Amino acid sequence: MSKTVVYEVQVMFGDCDPAGIVFFPNFSKWMDASSLNFFVRCGVLPWRELVKTRGIIGTPLLEIHTKFLRTATYGETLQIHTSVQEWKDKVFVHKHVVMRGDTVLCEGTEVRAFCIQHPDDADRIKSIPVPEDIQALCS
Amino acid sequence: MSKTVVYEVQVMFGDCDPAGIVFFPNFSKWMDASSLNFFVRCGVLPWRELVKTRGIIGTPLLEIHTKFLRTATYGETLQIHTSVQEWKDKVFVHKHVVMRGDTVLCEGTEVRAFCIQHPDDADRIKSIPVPEDIQALCS
Amino acid sequence: MSKTVVYEVQVMFGDCDPAGIVFFPNFSKWMDASSLNFFVRCGVLPWRELVKTRGIIGTPLLEIHTKFLRTATYGETLQIHTSVQEWKDKVFVHKHVVMRGDTVLCEGTEVRAFCIQHPDDADRIKSIPVPEDIQALCS
Amino acid sequence: MSKTVVYEVQVMFGDCDPAGIVFFPNFSKWMDASSLNFFVRCGVLPWRELVKTRGIIGTPLLEIHTKFLRTATYGETLQIHTSVQEWKDKVFVHKHVVMRGDTVLCEGTEVRAFCIQHPDDADRIKSIPVPEDIQALCS
Repeated sequence: MSKTVVYEVQVMFGDCDPAGIVFFPNFSKWMDASSLNFFVRCGVLPWRELVKTRGIIGTPLLEIHTKFLRTATYGETLQIHTSVQEWKDKVFVHKHVVMRGDTVLCEGTEVRAFCIQHPDDADRIKSIPVPEDIQALCS
Repeated sequence: MSKTVVYEVQVMFGDCDPAGIVFFPNFSKWMDASSLNFFVRCGVLPWRELVKTRGIIGTPLLEIHTKFLRTATYGETLQIHTSVQEWKDKVFVHKHVVMRGDTVLCEGTEVRAFCIQHPDDADRIKSIPVPEDIQALCS
Repeated sequence: MSKTVVYEVQVMFGDCDPAGIVFFPNFSKWMDASSLNFFVRCGVLPWRELVKTRGIIGTPLLEIHTKFLRTATYGETLQIHTSVQEWKDKVFVHKHVVMRGDTVLCEGTEVRAFCIQHPDDADRIKSIPVPEDIQALCS
Repeated sequence: MSKTVVYEVQVMFGDCDPAGIVFFPNFSKWMDASSLNFFVRCGVLPWRELVKTRGIIGTPLLEIHTKFLRTATYGETLQIHTSVQEWKDKVFVHKHVVMRGDTVLCEGTEVRAFCIQHPDDADRIKSIPVPEDIQALCS
């Protein structure tokens, strides 16, 4: 069974929209933070360190798919339950379940690839195969 | 053929992340703005007006699905091409294509429902069938 | 001496800019969240409750003044130390000190007024004198 | 008299808070975007180019001071009128006036310094005197 790491978020007033509920792209932001937290908690260095030693700038997103089931508002504390659903050769699939206690608010998957700065053009990035040591730490 | 409305966005420094590229949830924010712009340009009143006369608070999201093909950075001008891909009884599917001139950066669909304040509880919202007059204006 | 309430923030990747540091308006967002937390922790109901019983929609800002002393980055935990520096008849002055452990990162004041929906125009807001009971709870 | 450059912003739904008005830190974000636009329009290269040739990473903020006079909401178009109020040896003061047509919504000053990556520690930044050629382009 795969590791699951929980990341906690406090919803702020500024996270909410004129309907008084969390503006939905913030769920994506929090899933992204939970993805990074997942790697750090599994023992992977933060990207700003990894870029120096291995050139890895992070795990940019290729695709997201999110279902919004219930709303949340400011003052609430949410938990993002994050795991890796699937490791492929070139990409991996993150699963995030956003909960408020026992209630599921939002569920999503992210397809991500490990990327480095392009060797020929510092302005571009380039995906690499999933590093085996990182996969081992996170499985 | 369905109407397509284009919404233009200027990428700001604050929209970009430590990798120097647009932080991906901003694409969702811009698609959302383009969704609202689509309705206004089709002749629908902004939600803050509709809520007064018809109780409609907006079109909250049920689901999003987005593919990220190319990155963008600050100083660039992007165009969001927005249409309705499908009208169903209770929901509709928005399609958004984010372009930088001729280059597709990002594509996504949103499943949305028209919602009103819940008649029994001002703190909750309730979906309603797609209003026929609004569908007619937008088709 | 006035009450001080501490609000904790975890810096996310998406809070940081292309320089790799917290994008400065986020400090304002966090001070705002800490202001609201201050009132709730002092025993004041959240605005979405107060608006129902007393029409108070919150404490919109009239003025902010912030000094940025040191940067922060993602993965760090910050503490916002919030108090009321001065209560006046119509406004009050919040003081926020953003710290990372013993290090001061950022200091700011906010001038705020309690506001209600305008009795003659639901689209406008109107400031009211600082409510005495709220001031008493927070002093 | 100093140059004034105007930057236009369209307020999005996601820029607004539960009170239905622009969440105030967005004014700071827009002033920041207008600061960068000011330099680009005066003929200075964007920071991501300048960092390559001259090591200049941008003009981080030391201090902001903002007054909020009127609110704005989504669907509105705002104009940020930006100039340099004062050039000092080590810092300069930006002035931003946010208008909606003829109406002033918000006014602010920013104290900024030109910064480079610290020569001894890539993780830190270091302020430099205001570059004379840049000041000349912008005056």
